[in-house]
Amino acid sequence: MHTIEYYRKEFIGYLEQKTETKQPKNLYEPITYILSLGGKRLRPVLTLLSAEIFGTDYKNAMDAALAVEVFHNFSLVHDDIMDDAPLRRGKPTVHEKWDVNTGILSGDAMLINAYQLFENYRGETFRHLAKLFSKTAIEVCEGQQYDVDFETRDDVTVPEYLKMIEYKTAVLVAAALKMGAIIANASENEQEKIYDFGLNLGIAFQLQDDYLDAFGDPKTFGKQVGGDIIVNKKTYLYLKALELGTQRQRKELLDLFSLSPKDPSAKVANVKDIFLESGSADLTQNKIEHYTEKAFKVLQDLKLPDEKKALLKTFGKNLMRRKV
Amino acid sequence: MHTIEYYRKEFIGYLEQKTETKQPKNLYEPITYILSLGGKRLRPVLTLLSAEIFGTDYKNAMDAALAVEVFHNFSLVHDDIMDDAPLRRGKPTVHEKWDVNTGILSGDAMLINAYQLFENYRGETFRHLAKLFSKTAIEVCEGQQYDVDFETRDDVTVPEYLKMIEYKTAVLVAAALKMGAIIANASENEQEKIYDFGLNLGIAFQLQDDYLDAFGDPKTFGKQVGGDIIVNKKTYLYLKALELGTQRQRKELLDLFSLSPKDPSAKVANVKDIFLESGSADLTQNKIEHYTEKAFKVLQDLKLPDEKKALLKTFGKNLMRRKV
Repeated sequence: MHTIEYYRKEFIGYLEQKTETKQPKNLYEPITYILSLGGKRLRPVLTLLSAEIFGTDYKNAMDAALAVEVFHNFSLVHDDIMDDAPLRRGKPTVHEKWDVNTGILSGDAMLINAYQLFENYRGETFRHLAKLFSKTAIEVCEGQQYDVDFETRDDVTVPEYLKMIEYKTAVLVAAALKMGAIIANASENEQEKIYDFGLNLGIAFQLQDDYLDAFGDPKTFGKQVGGDIIVNKKTYLYLKALELGTQRQRKELLDLFSLSPKDPSAKVANVKDIFLESGSADLTQNKIEHYTEKAFKVLQDLKLPDEKKALLKTFGKNLMRRKV
Repeated sequence: MHTIEYYRKEFIGYLEQKTETKQPKNLYEPITYILSLGGKRLRPVLTLLSAEIFGTDYKNAMDAALAVEVFHNFSLVHDDIMDDAPLRRGKPTVHEKWDVNTGILSGDAMLINAYQLFENYRGETFRHLAKLFSKTAIEVCEGQQYDVDFETRDDVTVPEYLKMIEYKTAVLVAAALKMGAIIANASENEQEKIYDFGLNLGIAFQLQDDYLDAFGDPKTFGKQVGGDIIVNKKTYLYLKALELGTQRQRKELLDLFSLSPKDPSAKVANVKDIFLESGSADLTQNKIEHYTEKAFKVLQDLKLPDEKKALLKTFGKNLMRRKV
């Protein structure tokens, strides 16, 4: 076994070696660009880690890891168009640097390229990977659609929100881990368990993302702090504040979320106060803890050496302790 | 064997039975919509036809045929966004009826759905179909990119144009036929030959499309006659007119293609005159004939009963005789 940092470095080396700008340049240059912007590379690292945990060399999982990362970046390129986002990882988004049409078409090519990476696996491994990938990809699309739908709905429930982040975020974390298990020829039971571990960790991860979006340190958080509040996004923090808050807090929150002031700083500060005072911020922290613990509990049922479980736990704990 | 019309009807029945609007509605409704708009269903019919020609029941090829049609419609949805096209088959395009974001996301889901349809094939058939599909899909994206690039280039050559239509249109016709052969367990040589047949037929088909766009009968042609001329598209007709025309014709054509008049009728008429007088219209007709003959010649090398070859030939001939 290796450290997370080792897997990340190995993956980045492989990624750089594999992303060449072919012809037509205008199709492949944006792909090289978005893949070079960095990011935590969490998902591919999980694929490599999982492969070794279940007993095969992480190198065998490189192409699946790359497929997961290429797909993740495909979804970022298309989502950024839909959200009209100017920046991604502090750099211009693809549709900003080029144009919307380039973003659409290069994104399409990335989705296909991700499938092609599975062709390097033989026999039934190819089928299992491609099938899991399709199921995951379609769920990510459905999650994105729910996210879009929620923007114009004012009756979104907490269970609906949790389902949305499960589809939009958690299933890919889960699939990344399961792919490593598939490549290592792990049993179906082991595949299911590591998927469940990832699913719960993924939900915790997204709730943490929501939390940091409001309460992260502007110095270390990659995105604009308060971004979700500015665009009136109905996050877990928001939905729980409406549920837990006093009548006055509810009314104030609804009022604040009906506005989009030019200078949003007062609005952000007021909303954060309500998140804190209503108990929603604390409850969100508890929920993050809850899903992390749920993930760790799944690990108990897996027959793996303790040091391998410890590695997964460390990964999970670091993820929840992150400031980025 | 059956008639083309029989395959078409069977396919449409299968399509209608398989396209249900699942949740989230806003993701799947546009998919049901675009798939219900009709069209000639040429590509899926070719898959069914090819399967029976190589000796298996066409019913075994239904899911591959559907994948081909779903992919074709995915490419229409995304291309229509890029071209800002208001109409498709006389009805509002997806991004017009809904919005651009819906078009992007529903298109993405269609691409994934197409892959999922191959999951109904066992063992190596699945791998071969998925691999051919990915190769084809990426070539279609590259073809679309070349098409976009050509808009802003004034040095496009005829070979470049032929490569573009090969990728954008012909490879999918070829792949549709090859998929039928794969499902029927045809030999590699047979698979290659039927692919070549489709590739040449596909190029002839697209050149015919270019020709009809200028010289089609407005009463029977589905799209606006002269559409390519109005948007100054560098089609085969245009490139050949520049090559063959007199100095005066060249100059006039370049002038006309630098303009976008509000009432385009005079421009369309003048450009069509140049296409005719320069000899480009005739030469295009010859080229269509040439690629059709090339396709038929490939058939000679295939060891198939004459009546099966005749069916493919009839299909090709009807395609070239079409007014739509």
